[in-house]
Amino acid sequence: MLGTGSFSSNPSSAPCNNNVGFLQKNNSLEERSRIVSSFKEKHSSSKNLRSCENSDTESRFRRAETDFSNLFARDLLPCWTFTTLTSCWRAWRASTWSCRSSPSPWSRSWWTDILGFSISCQLLLELAVPKRFTYEIAPVFVLMEQLTLKKMREIIGWPNGEGDGIFSPGGAISNMYSVMVARYKYFPEAKTKGMSAVPRLVLFTSEHSHYSIKKSGAALGFGVENVILLKSDERCVKVIPADLEAKIIEAKQKGYVPLFVNATAGTTVYGAFDPIDEIADLCEKYNMWLHVDGAWGGGLLMSRKHRHKLSGIERANSVTWNPHKMMGVPLQCSAILVREKGLLQGCNQMCAGYLFQPDKQYDVTYDTGDKAIQCGRHVDIFKFWLMWKAKGTIGFEQHINKCLELSEYLYNKIKDREGFEMVFRGEPQHTNVCFWYVPPSLRGMPDCEERRERLHKVAPKIKAMMMESGTTMVGYQPQGDKVNFFRMVISNQAATKSDIDFLIEEIERLGQDL
Amino acid sequence: MLGTGSFSSNPSSAPCNNNVGFLQKNNSLEERSRIVSSFKEKHSSSKNLRSCENSDTESRFRRAETDFSNLFARDLLPCWTFTTLTSCWRAWRASTWSCRSSPSPWSRSWWTDILGFSISCQLLLELAVPKRFTYEIAPVFVLMEQLTLKKMREIIGWPNGEGDGIFSPGGAISNMYSVMVARYKYFPEAKTKGMSAVPRLVLFTSEHSHYSIKKSGAALGFGVENVILLKSDERCVKVIPADLEAKIIEAKQKGYVPLFVNATAGTTVYGAFDPIDEIADLCEKYNMWLHVDGAWGGGLLMSRKHRHKLSGIERANSVTWNPHKMMGVPLQCSAILVREKGLLQGCNQMCAGYLFQPDKQYDVTYDTGDKAIQCGRHVDIFKFWLMWKAKGTIGFEQHINKCLELSEYLYNKIKDREGFEMVFRGEPQHTNVCFWYVPPSLRGMPDCEERRERLHKVAPKIKAMMMESGTTMVGYQPQGDKVNFFRMVISNQAATKSDIDFLIEEIERLGQDL
Repeated sequence: MLGTGSFSSNPSSAPCNNNVGFLQKNNSLEERSRIVSSFKEKHSSSKNLRSCENSDTESRFRRAETDFSNLFARDLLPCWTFTTLTSCWRAWRASTWSCRSSPSPWSRSWWTDILGFSISCQLLLELAVPKRFTYEIAPVFVLMEQLTLKKMREIIGWPNGEGDGIFSPGGAISNMYSVMVARYKYFPEAKTKGMSAVPRLVLFTSEHSHYSIKKSGAALGFGVENVILLKSDERCVKVIPADLEAKIIEAKQKGYVPLFVNATAGTTVYGAFDPIDEIADLCEKYNMWLHVDGAWGGGLLMSRKHRHKLSGIERANSVTWNPHKMMGVPLQCSAILVREKGLLQGCNQMCAGYLFQPDKQYDVTYDTGDKAIQCGRHVDIFKFWLMWKAKGTIGFEQHINKCLELSEYLYNKIKDREGFEMVFRGEPQHTNVCFWYVPPSLRGMPDCEERRERLHKVAPKIKAMMMESGTTMVGYQPQGDKVNFFRMVISNQAATKSDIDFLIEEIERLGQDL
Repeated sequence: MLGTGSFSSNPSSAPCNNNVGFLQKNNSLEERSRIVSSFKEKHSSSKNLRSCENSDTESRFRRAETDFSNLFARDLLPCWTFTTLTSCWRAWRASTWSCRSSPSPWSRSWWTDILGFSISCQLLLELAVPKRFTYEIAPVFVLMEQLTLKKMREIIGWPNGEGDGIFSPGGAISNMYSVMVARYKYFPEAKTKGMSAVPRLVLFTSEHSHYSIKKSGAALGFGVENVILLKSDERCVKVIPADLEAKIIEAKQKGYVPLFVNATAGTTVYGAFDPIDEIADLCEKYNMWLHVDGAWGGGLLMSRKHRHKLSGIERANSVTWNPHKMMGVPLQCSAILVREKGLLQGCNQMCAGYLFQPDKQYDVTYDTGDKAIQCGRHVDIFKFWLMWKAKGTIGFEQHINKCLELSEYLYNKIKDREGFEMVFRGEPQHTNVCFWYVPPSLRGMPDCEERRERLHKVAPKIKAMMMESGTTMVGYQPQGDKVNFFRMVISNQAATKSDIDFLIEEIERLGQDL
């Protein structure tokens, strides 16, 4: 990947307008009583304050939402970070909680580069040391997570954004959640009795899919042998639906139960998109769970120009979508989204009494901890939410479109260039551009074992020299019967055409004598 | 928890002494060649640069270690953060890679508060957007992780710190790793064939253990019914070894296979330590895996005064230890440590060719990705490593000792105080202090159903008022037949005796009229 994220403006020069008057721990007893009283009067809810009844939860909850933010933010944050937050806060109050479609006006006069937002957020988070499992520990972040997940579900195309979801520590864990939830939906007894109490369950995924599906099969007790790999089409990219159906039938004939199909939206190496609609037809026909692993390709949903590549995703039962990949949010920020409500909770809850008490002061359905396989969770939502507020949906769309244009630029530049060979013809569907560099010494040679062996060593050598000289780095790998080739991936919107030009020249410079 | 982390010094006022002369992407072709040549000459290894042979890996690796750091750091980091890093860098070069036992001299003139280090680290990380699965992507962090894990294993008491380990996104996932690795050790075929191909496996854990053991049982295909809960002693805190043995025998008589025992070092509610040595005897006798969940109590290993509470931990097969809890490292920072090498890799590897190529330029055993159930991982090690460099082992020891002294102070202050009742007698083993506040209206009342019902509501009401007034917050929960009680936990070394005094007064102030 090309990486040139810059950070030039200095937030610490902004003025600090800390207000006073909030309750502090070192207030005297008199001051404390006075402030608390006036606070209570202001909100006209002193009766409720001493009550544990959960009636009128909705309105009380809305009130508490504001109270928390006003009360604690200024106590926790250092000045310059606080100023940053104040800007966000104003924008937030001026607009709404929800994620914007157009860029926020304040983002223009502020700093909008790819990492600026996340730095500020992360700084806040490290100061506040929040954990997320209950609403009371991290109320604002719990709400941000809920709203953002709803927005993501709307973009997927689920009616009214209904459904469920959670942020997890990465796409591999999100994919693992999808398998767990699918198992719970069809065989809830596996939770209590284990995998030996259910039929032999089979998962299907492309031979080009991410290895986390196989890892999930191993970890969750299915066994890797029960993760059936699907063939791809002649361009070696997309799953062939007929192959899927043949394998479903074969599994059923053996007495196994086909449970789950993973359709990849953006494979790791080729950036290919499986045909979701056709796979969804088969999942309906055979009553199987459809998961779309959009960890890499999910970002294209933000682009009106490119989202057709995920056509049919609204028919999925679950979706993995990593804003930390194509959308430029720094690692880690991955979401697992589930169409049916209640499954995540049912699948994972253990009802630990010491965390999830039903007699709390607020609506405990906001406690997210029992949905997760984790307990405390790192706050990954804030940087994403704030980035969305600033860039808007349109900003993400421009980001995505620009990266895809750059890939097209790279593809067009090298597809007929001397010394370059494409791994497959045709414009890349995602930003993955896969190619060989053929040094002059190999160019005249016919395709034979010797040439293959020598070509296989070219990419590793060039990459090693890149690492030594520190100019750039691009990954390579073999795939099936293909010898080592370069895989260029662009996800940073700060990349430019001159970066692409540089990359090509650098490969030629380093590889000319091989 | 009491939380008053402050951040007062201003790193941006430090001078920025950025050097020049490193290779930049915008150097001209001539400059590039010159710099690269001189760099190569300096290190006298131009022959190796174009070779893919992996001979002499060790010395080359050591060389590369320095090269990377010099080459890339200044390109990636903004000025003030860079200055901070420069200080660390100097300290690092002046000392060694390893973690110090005494505080670093530079830490005294710098900022040593609980969060300062992590903020700087996190800022660096968010700028560099590193992921960890291969050495080449995050070379320094991979090395830091290895060295720190080794140091932790030494402290556990495993000979020469040998073994394996990885940082995970929290204690629940670390515990899940332990169950996976235990299964792989005894029944490696479960990885390929699934749980239906192995006997019915049984896990044992205390009724007071963290719910993540049960969650692991559900997720990994054992089934919650096969997670057997162990009784505790008369103080309701520690596992009774005789009960464990009886349940092992019972399981074997039913034809099940006892696989795994989790001993908790520091239970979540009571902070109790299971008798590891006695449990280890039974694990040896019945050939079972011994895991110690020291997520909460592991920190006490750093204290010569308190580490005896984990006596026998060196006999464990695996240990969960969360520096993000008792040691004050901000979330997330959790380690799973495994005594036997190779199991983590064997259990989780899928050998994805596009990530883990054997023909790379460096020793690929440094690639950690295939040990993990994740792919990319958030960098959690840097803040911990830097904190250790600054505070030293002695600094952590003082931190731990201080928190335990404060808990003792709290315990001594309330154990005979009017209106307070301890949930169990005797000094707390960890910093958990569990107690009821009994308002004046209930003090004369004999123990009866009405009193229990009313007392059950006291802690929720006081906590709700704390949240409304924003002065402090302390958690409560019921446990078994015990009605809601407060659980005060101290892990922040910035807490003081006056914080404790305040807490007691505040509970009395808010609860006096209930």
